[in-house]
Amino acid sequence: MSGKNIFYAQSGGVTAVINATACGVIETARKHKDRLGTVYAGLNGILGALNDQLIDTSLESDEDIAALRHTPSGAFGSCRYKLKNLEENRAEYERLIEVFKAHDIGYFLYNGGGDSQDTCNKVSQLSAALGYPLVSIGIPKTIDNDLPFTDSCPGFGSVAKYVAVSAKETAMDVASMAATSTKIFVMEVMGRHAGWIAAAGGLVAGVGDSPFLILFPEIPLNEEAFLKRVQQCVETYGYCVIVASEGAKNAEGKFLSESGVKDAFGHVQLGGVAPIIAKRIKDQLGYKYHWAVCDYLQRAARHIASKVDVEQAYALGVAAIDFILQGKTAVMPIIVRENDQPYRWKIGEVSLSEVANVEKKMPRDFISKDGFGITQKCLAYLQPLIQGEDYPPYENGLPNYVKLKNQLVK
Amino acid sequence: MSGKNIFYAQSGGVTAVINATACGVIETARKHKDRLGTVYAGLNGILGALNDQLIDTSLESDEDIAALRHTPSGAFGSCRYKLKNLEENRAEYERLIEVFKAHDIGYFLYNGGGDSQDTCNKVSQLSAALGYPLVSIGIPKTIDNDLPFTDSCPGFGSVAKYVAVSAKETAMDVASMAATSTKIFVMEVMGRHAGWIAAAGGLVAGVGDSPFLILFPEIPLNEEAFLKRVQQCVETYGYCVIVASEGAKNAEGKFLSESGVKDAFGHVQLGGVAPIIAKRIKDQLGYKYHWAVCDYLQRAARHIASKVDVEQAYALGVAAIDFILQGKTAVMPIIVRENDQPYRWKIGEVSLSEVANVEKKMPRDFISKDGFGITQKCLAYLQPLIQGEDYPPYENGLPNYVKLKNQLVK
Repeated sequence: MSGKNIFYAQSGGVTAVINATACGVIETARKHKDRLGTVYAGLNGILGALNDQLIDTSLESDEDIAALRHTPSGAFGSCRYKLKNLEENRAEYERLIEVFKAHDIGYFLYNGGGDSQDTCNKVSQLSAALGYPLVSIGIPKTIDNDLPFTDSCPGFGSVAKYVAVSAKETAMDVASMAATSTKIFVMEVMGRHAGWIAAAGGLVAGVGDSPFLILFPEIPLNEEAFLKRVQQCVETYGYCVIVASEGAKNAEGKFLSESGVKDAFGHVQLGGVAPIIAKRIKDQLGYKYHWAVCDYLQRAARHIASKVDVEQAYALGVAAIDFILQGKTAVMPIIVRENDQPYRWKIGEVSLSEVANVEKKMPRDFISKDGFGITQKCLAYLQPLIQGEDYPPYENGLPNYVKLKNQLVK
Repeated sequence: MSGKNIFYAQSGGVTAVINATACGVIETARKHKDRLGTVYAGLNGILGALNDQLIDTSLESDEDIAALRHTPSGAFGSCRYKLKNLEENRAEYERLIEVFKAHDIGYFLYNGGGDSQDTCNKVSQLSAALGYPLVSIGIPKTIDNDLPFTDSCPGFGSVAKYVAVSAKETAMDVASMAATSTKIFVMEVMGRHAGWIAAAGGLVAGVGDSPFLILFPEIPLNEEAFLKRVQQCVETYGYCVIVASEGAKNAEGKFLSESGVKDAFGHVQLGGVAPIIAKRIKDQLGYKYHWAVCDYLQRAARHIASKVDVEQAYALGVAAIDFILQGKTAVMPIIVRENDQPYRWKIGEVSLSEVANVEKKMPRDFISKDGFGITQKCLAYLQPLIQGEDYPPYENGLPNYVKLKNQLVK
């Protein structure tokens, strides 16, 4: 091996396809052993670098690395750990670069959301300042789909597919029983500040009148209008299915449900909007209800991943290595949409300084005027992202997901 | 057509495979037009008979009937409506038989759980007493797997597969993040009085020590022992996944969570055990948690149905017609297990009078001594039931489920 080594880390909430990106990174790096050294993965993300716990991926077989493509979760461990401001904790950044130096790492690949792209950018800047210039490439990942510039974020398409499939199946269930039993089904999905995931309910509801209502965090809930729409649905269709974002807010802009617990980024940990909405409907309209909270089910559901999503996640991993080989730094590969139907996309790039800490919410013209559905524009955007199935192999009735050896470098 | 007509009704909570049974019934009846008349389906189950709303299935194409095999929910509508005792409401039974007489129905097929088998048996008895003897065949169906005599109940295998796949995927998710984030994941599943569905978590946990704990309704919760086990899991594996039955009870035998709402059968409608358990762990042990409530997601999830389950559901529909042709009545076809591994099963039968209103709970020797897991015996029982995948066709990223015309007989 002649080139410098690569450090790859997974960051933040894991997805059904983040390992497909890892697969793309490692498989592509292995094809360029003449120019690139070993891919080291951080045990539990960036903490692996801070704690000098680097996983030597060269000890994993080609078969196991290939199996990452169909394995959900974070194969090397991820973390919710945000490096502080340079001013506040310069020592942490210096520590990172010290570890990189010790392991002859010349390339830093950070696979995560907005916070991670920000970190990646800072590491890039500081390493140059400290005289150990690192090539830093961010790789997008987030089920929330809230990164700017990239048309979509790996992980989102699969969650959207899960939500749409589940909304379709449960709506059929409710419809079967509504004459004498449950008339209201509330399905709570993720998406703290952006309604992209909830919008996936629109893939089943379509545009215009339907028995589905969507609650977006972008639209404060007008309870009176909402209850009226629920009643209309029940009177017209016999039932109503509500796809509610965990971040749904009341008219005052407060989260409908707050557990009070905050995560390491200081974000409020939510959960439990569904029972609150269901109960309110019962109290006001008297309808029998059921509710579900999807939580991790939705982001871990590799069994029903979107083929497009898997392909894009892999391609972004490949692109990160390609960028290294092309001599780029402080950039993030992105998905560029060329056409809706037939769907065509390609890899593009954006500077890390532009992407850091910018949150992409649903455009208002993606949400219907009444605020309870999506528009044709949104549908045209979402539809390509859930195309195709990419089933994992099964053994003895269960998906055969890989567990790597994850041996640390001494 | 020379024979008498058939009345087929779906009853109670629908499943991912009850339509596969309908498919077996209708396809087989169509093969015997020389001896059997039309299959009429009750609109919303037995209510269709009481309200004289019979769906003429002969107006559906062969393709649409075949598509029932991969379509979840109840294609003709189901209901939670229990006929009262003969003594209390003889008029209702007489009404039923009057409608059957009017439509020249000679065969009554009732596809449901324990309550429905009881109704089916009563209709059989009363029709004879009223001089209009009906051939009555019960067909088992219930995700709860709590019918006696039959080795398993159609619908259960698919829910078990859903629960096992989801437990496996979410556990991998939690494991990835546990070092710095969520350590506890509570997944609430159905099963009011019997822990069969929760036991499916054991398909991932295996037998013996693991990061999984299962809460069965059969085992009142010893909170101290439970919390100790949770702590052990976190200390050993870094995380703990709890698969909790909605019917989990406290030491006094009371449901951990009661919504207070009762369904038409007088059963308490449950939901929300997961957040209660998660919160208790947080309060006592301080671990960060997430929780999910699967609710209808699990029983509607045709996208991840068990192939064995689909095949058995279909075969029981076929058997019901075969029984008619063989001149049987007041019986229910059942699944008889011939061997665990390799799994072999055949169709058997049981008298309706024996099956009515008997609930099959988990045998104590299927639950581990400590009450938080399953035994080898249980694993050997469960494993065959989730074998094989039976994916529905997809169109434009979503399952292509059939919607029948459901035209009523005039």
